[in-house]
Amino acid sequence: MEAKPITDLSKLCIHTITTRPWCLDDAIGHYAAAGVAGISVWRQAIEGLDPARAGRRIREAGMAVVSLVRGGFYPATEKKDRQRAIDENLRIIDEAAALGAPHVVLVCGAVPGQSLEESRKQIREGIEATLAHAAETGIKLAIEPLHPMYADSRSAVNTLGQANDMAEAIDSPLVGVAVDVYHLWWDPDLERQIRRCGRLGKILAFHICDWKTPTEDLLYDRGLMGEGCIPIRRIRGWVEAAGFAGFNEVEIFSTARWTQDQQQWLQEILRAYREAS
Amino acid sequence: MEAKPITDLSKLCIHTITTRPWCLDDAIGHYAAAGVAGISVWRQAIEGLDPARAGRRIREAGMAVVSLVRGGFYPATEKKDRQRAIDENLRIIDEAAALGAPHVVLVCGAVPGQSLEESRKQIREGIEATLAHAAETGIKLAIEPLHPMYADSRSAVNTLGQANDMAEAIDSPLVGVAVDVYHLWWDPDLERQIRRCGRLGKILAFHICDWKTPTEDLLYDRGLMGEGCIPIRRIRGWVEAAGFAGFNEVEIFSTARWTQDQQQWLQEILRAYREAS
Repeated sequence: MEAKPITDLSKLCIHTITTRPWCLDDAIGHYAAAGVAGISVWRQAIEGLDPARAGRRIREAGMAVVSLVRGGFYPATEKKDRQRAIDENLRIIDEAAALGAPHVVLVCGAVPGQSLEESRKQIREGIEATLAHAAETGIKLAIEPLHPMYADSRSAVNTLGQANDMAEAIDSPLVGVAVDVYHLWWDPDLERQIRRCGRLGKILAFHICDWKTPTEDLLYDRGLMGEGCIPIRRIRGWVEAAGFAGFNEVEIFSTARWTQDQQQWLQEILRAYREAS
Repeated sequence: MEAKPITDLSKLCIHTITTRPWCLDDAIGHYAAAGVAGISVWRQAIEGLDPARAGRRIREAGMAVVSLVRGGFYPATEKKDRQRAIDENLRIIDEAAALGAPHVVLVCGAVPGQSLEESRKQIREGIEATLAHAAETGIKLAIEPLHPMYADSRSAVNTLGQANDMAEAIDSPLVGVAVDVYHLWWDPDLERQIRRCGRLGKILAFHICDWKTPTEDLLYDRGLMGEGCIPIRRIRGWVEAAGFAGFNEVEIFSTARWTQDQQQWLQEILRAYREAS
């Protein structure tokens, strides 16, 4: 069943990367003024800043810190590099705690030429190596399956089924999944897999954008909701029916959009959020 | 189990698109001189030519006509456009028969914004509408699942599992599948699905190339075997273990390769075929 149309901005969250030209302060100011309810903070947006102070500023502006994006990238050929990734993820968990983000989104990683099975094993080991610290700080970890076109170098977890398998195998209340329509819309098994993680209370995040035809770039040509072919409202219906009541997070990487006036871009996002999400 | 290394060219087939700058006569001449055993003919390579004559020339040069590429593109919003696609596929079947190709490879199609379920229904109807003519001419139809990054506009069939479902539902000895490593390598279910169609004798074609990191273009940046991350030999092992004894078809779309000297490119293909397939 399709979700009900969106009538207000109370569940709208925007990822800072969506308006990349803005520094964090600008994003906070403009989002809050527009009535946006939450921010997902990309690490590069707080590079060199005090995350605790950044978190306070967001909350003082009346918005929620929805997530810290992104940890992960566990696989590596050398053990010392895998340990470095684990150490980095421990720091990311600290950053999330300081920021006041409930969870970190994980782009799990992959190594070109290493088998996907081996990468998935390393991903699981990497997550498990940070669980104790996640528990100490109360930070959850959201496994985000990435589109199969990123299986070479960005993630060996490419369907929600695989993310669910991994979350269930790790079997920690701290580990769940992030559902991003861009990565998952094509999967004939998607509705069933959303029900599966919903039943376990493991949907930690819901990300929206659109898939344009043609897509000119594998990374930086995501579309605004309504510009493409993704049945966003239908998938939102599945996610909500599965018990998820969190934010609808707009996460759009687009070279073309980043070069336009960002205030105008923000207004287009608000309109598309109401009309096509 | 990995396939045995390749020691000769007796199963090497090249798709004419791989050396796109060459006209069909040049491709026939150069492939045959290099010891290539088979050609898969793209329709644009015989546009304006007599397909029967083209087929004779290929066989006279000592090569097999492995397939005609490509039919399909069944889905459309309007019924008259779906009928037009069916009519075109009937002509393609005639072309394959004239050429002496045993089968047509089907890129099934998709319509941006139309649900993938509806497109798959239209694909099935389209294939079924051509079955009688395929039977009269003895031409088989190979459903080729395409990578999920083409689900918007090129194919609503994106995994071998889906292609198998469709081939089994249509349930005709004329309908099978084409296994292309570029589209399918990432799928955790691939080995099982290859066994499944192998058991039914439905593997009609096996296509090879590689996935480069980074991939600069969604369509025209395929890699030569060995340039990327696809475990080609492992997948070939699965296909052969499933009973497939046909050609290994090199199908590479690459703007960069098409601009290089095609004789040198052909030599690189021969080397990579022996070393990395």
